[in-house]
Amino acid sequence: MPTELPAGADPRDIPDATVSRLPEYLHALHTLAETGIATVSSEGLAVAAGVNSAKLRKDLSHLGSYGIRGVGYDIAVLTTQISDVLGLRQHRAVALVGVGHLGQALAGYGGFANRGFGIAALFDIAEDRVGTVLNGLPVRHLDELAEVVSAEGISIAVITTPPLAAQRVADSLVRAGVTSILNFAPCVLDVPGNVDVRKVDLAVELQILSFHEHRKSRNGKVAT
Amino acid sequence: MPTELPAGADPRDIPDATVSRLPEYLHALHTLAETGIATVSSEGLAVAAGVNSAKLRKDLSHLGSYGIRGVGYDIAVLTTQISDVLGLRQHRAVALVGVGHLGQALAGYGGFANRGFGIAALFDIAEDRVGTVLNGLPVRHLDELAEVVSAEGISIAVITTPPLAAQRVADSLVRAGVTSILNFAPCVLDVPGNVDVRKVDLAVELQILSFHEHRKSRNGKVAT
Repeated sequence: MPTELPAGADPRDIPDATVSRLPEYLHALHTLAETGIATVSSEGLAVAAGVNSAKLRKDLSHLGSYGIRGVGYDIAVLTTQISDVLGLRQHRAVALVGVGHLGQALAGYGGFANRGFGIAALFDIAEDRVGTVLNGLPVRHLDELAEVVSAEGISIAVITTPPLAAQRVADSLVRAGVTSILNFAPCVLDVPGNVDVRKVDLAVELQILSFHEHRKSRNGKVAT
Repeated sequence: MPTELPAGADPRDIPDATVSRLPEYLHALHTLAETGIATVSSEGLAVAAGVNSAKLRKDLSHLGSYGIRGVGYDIAVLTTQISDVLGLRQHRAVALVGVGHLGQALAGYGGFANRGFGIAALFDIAEDRVGTVLNGLPVRHLDELAEVVSAEGISIAVITTPPLAAQRVADSLVRAGVTSILNFAPCVLDVPGNVDVRKVDLAVELQILSFHEHRKSRNGKVAT
């Protein structure tokens, strides 16, 4: 049976926290490869990815990748291993729904294409947006969703609509066959169990920083 | 010694994973409060926040908040407790650097103000942006950063510049006294230990979804 995966690495056994760091390692590896070097120590890779090296070694051991003492990791091999595990060797077509400022920012974001993704279709319902062209892609009406998702083989969608529209959009996406959703609308989506949702709530990120600010100011004032 | 915190809750003892969920609980509480109800069960709050109820109860126990059997949590009390822990009862002024599409999306994002944050200042270096007005705020030149950060009492900044400019902007922010940074540029920032950085990398979120897509398609094909 052909397999793309390194021996011993079953993606179902990789902890979610490790999965969430693999893209960072991959990004660091790409950056290192551009400098022309062929191997990197776990310490070097850890610094480039912004994690500690013990955590990095543990994470990569889940992929069956251990490096060589005194040499480190082969950058090309490790890049292929991580790309395999993340399923990035197959280019993935992404639909984006909601072409406001944020949607336009994402549609124009250059970092997707060289990381395995392409925004393949844009959708909105506003009359003044449908029919316009953004970065070479037409903005289509949401009514065309099912047809386009099927024709383009889209399985991942990004929701950048206002929160009140997000659930209805998610329902349409699920009906059209999308099984992974990246949700920027500040609301919880109700989807079937086979659909993965990741939520990016920009105010939440600020609130977490607020906690750290608050803790710093308390530490400055409160005797411990 | 006056304290805003519920008895028994020291913010230094709250796990990071719990902190990262508190904003979700707070958002769910706000939504529930708008419906006019006064109390909520842990199950009800868990559903509204999109987590499981055992995890929610554990998280809230770190705040010294346990609810009442058969009644649940008092929404107003719990809202105040979480806001206290997150330091949100003090409105925080935020600077945003880099007024491209993403910066404009964030500057126009209505969800910040009612969640304890205000974008207080916008910065860029592009001649065609500096001097323009966005949502009532002038776009200032980055050279004015130190002066404005000090005058407005800004401690949190958002970086929405291209990656090559981000480290230089971060250095300027740190010099100006900013101690928390939300970084949207796809790069690792090198900052002093007293500065908290949270990174939002949009391609990383897509790559994590790609992993789940990949796993789903493997599960469909590979006998287990």
